[in-house]
Amino acid sequence: MTDLDIARAYEPATIDKIASKLDIKEEDLEFYGKYKAKLPLHIAKEAKQGKLILVSAISPTPAGEGKTTMSIGLHDALCKLKKRSLAVLREPSLGPVFGIKGGATGGGHAQVVPMEDINLHFTGDFSAIESAHNLLSALIDNHLHFNQSPQIDPRSVLWKRAMDLNDRALRHINVGLGGRSHGMPRETGFDITAASEIMAILCMALDLNDLKKRLGNILVAYTFDRKPVFARDLKAEGAMAALLKDAIKPNLVQSLEGNPVLMHGGPFANIAQGTNTIIATQTGLRLADYVVTEAGFGFDLGGEKFLDLKCRAAALAPEVVVLVATVRALKYHGEQPLAELQTENVDALRKGMCNLEKHLENVKQFGLPAVVVVNRFPTDTEAEIAAVIEECEKLGVRAVTSTAWANGGEGSVDLAKAVLETIDEAENDFSFLYNLDLPVEKKIEKIATQFYGAAKVSFTSTARRDLKRIQELGMDDAPICIAKTQKSLSDDPTLKGRPKDFNFQVRGIEIAAGAGFVIPLSGEIMRMPGLPKAPAAQNIDIDKDGNISGLF
Amino acid sequence: MTDLDIARAYEPATIDKIASKLDIKEEDLEFYGKYKAKLPLHIAKEAKQGKLILVSAISPTPAGEGKTTMSIGLHDALCKLKKRSLAVLREPSLGPVFGIKGGATGGGHAQVVPMEDINLHFTGDFSAIESAHNLLSALIDNHLHFNQSPQIDPRSVLWKRAMDLNDRALRHINVGLGGRSHGMPRETGFDITAASEIMAILCMALDLNDLKKRLGNILVAYTFDRKPVFARDLKAEGAMAALLKDAIKPNLVQSLEGNPVLMHGGPFANIAQGTNTIIATQTGLRLADYVVTEAGFGFDLGGEKFLDLKCRAAALAPEVVVLVATVRALKYHGEQPLAELQTENVDALRKGMCNLEKHLENVKQFGLPAVVVVNRFPTDTEAEIAAVIEECEKLGVRAVTSTAWANGGEGSVDLAKAVLETIDEAENDFSFLYNLDLPVEKKIEKIATQFYGAAKVSFTSTARRDLKRIQELGMDDAPICIAKTQKSLSDDPTLKGRPKDFNFQVRGIEIAAGAGFVIPLSGEIMRMPGLPKAPAAQNIDIDKDGNISGLF
Repeated sequence: MTDLDIARAYEPATIDKIASKLDIKEEDLEFYGKYKAKLPLHIAKEAKQGKLILVSAISPTPAGEGKTTMSIGLHDALCKLKKRSLAVLREPSLGPVFGIKGGATGGGHAQVVPMEDINLHFTGDFSAIESAHNLLSALIDNHLHFNQSPQIDPRSVLWKRAMDLNDRALRHINVGLGGRSHGMPRETGFDITAASEIMAILCMALDLNDLKKRLGNILVAYTFDRKPVFARDLKAEGAMAALLKDAIKPNLVQSLEGNPVLMHGGPFANIAQGTNTIIATQTGLRLADYVVTEAGFGFDLGGEKFLDLKCRAAALAPEVVVLVATVRALKYHGEQPLAELQTENVDALRKGMCNLEKHLENVKQFGLPAVVVVNRFPTDTEAEIAAVIEECEKLGVRAVTSTAWANGGEGSVDLAKAVLETIDEAENDFSFLYNLDLPVEKKIEKIATQFYGAAKVSFTSTARRDLKRIQELGMDDAPICIAKTQKSLSDDPTLKGRPKDFNFQVRGIEIAAGAGFVIPLSGEIMRMPGLPKAPAAQNIDIDKDGNISGLF
Repeated sequence: MTDLDIARAYEPATIDKIASKLDIKEEDLEFYGKYKAKLPLHIAKEAKQGKLILVSAISPTPAGEGKTTMSIGLHDALCKLKKRSLAVLREPSLGPVFGIKGGATGGGHAQVVPMEDINLHFTGDFSAIESAHNLLSALIDNHLHFNQSPQIDPRSVLWKRAMDLNDRALRHINVGLGGRSHGMPRETGFDITAASEIMAILCMALDLNDLKKRLGNILVAYTFDRKPVFARDLKAEGAMAALLKDAIKPNLVQSLEGNPVLMHGGPFANIAQGTNTIIATQTGLRLADYVVTEAGFGFDLGGEKFLDLKCRAAALAPEVVVLVATVRALKYHGEQPLAELQTENVDALRKGMCNLEKHLENVKQFGLPAVVVVNRFPTDTEAEIAAVIEECEKLGVRAVTSTAWANGGEGSVDLAKAVLETIDEAENDFSFLYNLDLPVEKKIEKIATQFYGAAKVSFTSTARRDLKRIQELGMDDAPICIAKTQKSLSDDPTLKGRPKDFNFQVRGIEIAAGAGFVIPLSGEIMRMPGLPKAPAAQNIDIDKDGNISGLF
């Protein structure tokens, strides 16, 4: 049975029924078909405050460790325990759906539905973000075409275009060809929409005014005499914000077990903050007593950014961090070859625990309590599971297993109980990893050494130049959003386990002045994926009655 | 007062109230917010059949003659006369909204609302079309990248990319630059989404199966040995159709007077068929007794295509053609300079009647009765209006004036009565202009000479080569969708009035194998507009409560 088959076996309730579970007023529901709705912005500003549960993970294998599935399962389990719970998650990107990864709505019996809609077009948020992004691009090229003031150096344009597809041929392009009526020739490219700064901005925005201000602050280019040009200089932010008028509202959907789920925003976790919108999280905290949310990739990437960027910007504080581990990922970090991850190997597993150990230490650096959940796979052996639990006991952390994929909420009841007890009993002394008043250079060094475990940090000459530019722009007090591989705690994707004595190299620093952070780049960061040789798109179909197949 | 100000003064009913006027079942409504809904496909297949009223126009001035405003006004007037009427219209493109033209939801007191939504993102149809279009592009470039079979000649790729913005810098681009991991370098470009063949296909499709078949039939490229490669050869049509699963459903909105309006699809009228989807028209004819619809630009362009392409494909037949004329356009065709069109000039007006005369003859060639409506502007003088009516009497056609812009349905009651009487009384002997079994060359000649009034037709060597290719592809029985200027009955935009003795030159013929027609190109056809020096986008804004300004 595929995820789609499993999802079809459940009969979803209409979305007004789901909304009534959270006492959302009927007049506050904007329906998008029968099973999706948008919620108004005013809910996020109300006074009530639920408890926030952050789901993160150890450094993942290429297949991912099932963070979304664990988040949905935990939420369904909390609902089973009669808690007023809500899961607040990211929306999936269209690109990977047609590539290799498939959808991003959980798996097995822990899914969000309607999965076909959510994975394909949903409520149009990504499209609106793409339009707003490309409108700014068109205004920039139009400005160049008419040689308007301030006079932009066409070689200096930082702002590319965006498309929500995996399309490698658009990574590096020349535009404005064909003669003087067709714009200014220059080099540029497309990023996937999830990598757009507009996506990062939408997810950081506190309300419409804040959104517009951030859009105006986007650094798009420089003049010939190296003065910065912002989106506001092109009077772009009003129309961009107008395009985002619906995209800024959170989307209400449901889990297979009929529990409410908000899905809103989907920035990449390597080059952006990797978590849903602030508005959706705040809306969730007003509506529910417990909000389960996740942050992309491992705790080193999405987790750190969730806490240092998002929680700081929105005055949020989680009660507990759930770290998802899998037997296969632990063995992977214990140097078991990728092709043999389904074979029992307790020694490799124990060896790979060092990765989990470092993530747990990192959670402690934020003053937060942690619970480890082992996402069970059919190939896991009892000996392996026993070994993880035993090793976690040695590390002094509570660890439980979950079978949410196979059993939905029922499979995560142990996890839910552990989480609730931890919230009630464990110490929580949340603080940020760094203070904003440290210079950008020092903030990067702190994250790289203290959090990733680097022995030292080096900056290329480009990165040094960027540091200088950040100072000139008055952004030395900006928070940091490091772009690095998710495959390792270090900046080298081949280093598994708990790398030590490595040099963390910063090869450049991008300035997301609209999102309000700077992005130090380490290693090669992919902003526009490519399709595989046999794209998933070729198996997707729809019949005459509108039933979709081939989504997984 | 701007159109937006006027629209805001009306209190719209929720869309379920509007739907109940047509006895649409509540379970058939898919809400998109409170004021928009999608209707299911099964309605189009039901048995009931209303009467179709086609609104077209004389050759327009650059500002357009208010066809949409006249269509909405006529519809509102029919409702005032207690007729069960429905207007079925095109959706506006986002590009012009940010350029110079503003929205496309009618004007004054004859508008469709919610105009901000409709003009900005509406229900996501254009976005879905864009995604489907660009997914095919990505699959083509991926096929080239992996050098898969059939081996496509990268120089032969016909399929470009699409974006719903005015962005001249994307007209001519090079993609696949940056080295061998980033695709195959080649020349290509972007068209605006309204010019995409996917848009044409969606508007020609009879149902989901037909849609998928047409998507598979898209001719995308040739192999090195000049064999055609279709979208189905890349297994693209299933995923493309899946992306269009909601876009294929008609959108229900309302006029300012609270009468139901369907808006669905928006292909260009110069290079495509210029009219809403067949599915929306058929849905309308099942729901209402009278369906008012329009076709883009003048009767020579949108009108001919509506009848020869759309009515033929869907077995539709209009009862009457309403030709929209304006005093300013008639003076324009009488050689009054553009800058002086607001100055009274009865002589110029009488001289310009020859343009209307030819369009009326063309309506007769289809065996259809016509009514002329003069869309009144505040600057029209009584002498001018009297002259139009008098000249129309001489031509033996019924002519009335309309003040729908100023007075809504009340301003079009005379028109509605004239239309109803014409439907009841006038002869209707509808037949197509040409038979499909004529070769493409002869069909083009027939349209150009008999319909446009050309003395002769010439084909460039490129066009001759294209004719040969059409024969090789077995498409010589395809209908014709001529791409030509809307500014003149001829192919020369500077020839006003009723051009004679001109040579109509075909410089190439595109093959829209998916849409099911061929597109002879005459003159320069713009598929990707540019923004003006001061784009409308720079005046658009949204306040903290979500109120939009600057849309007009």
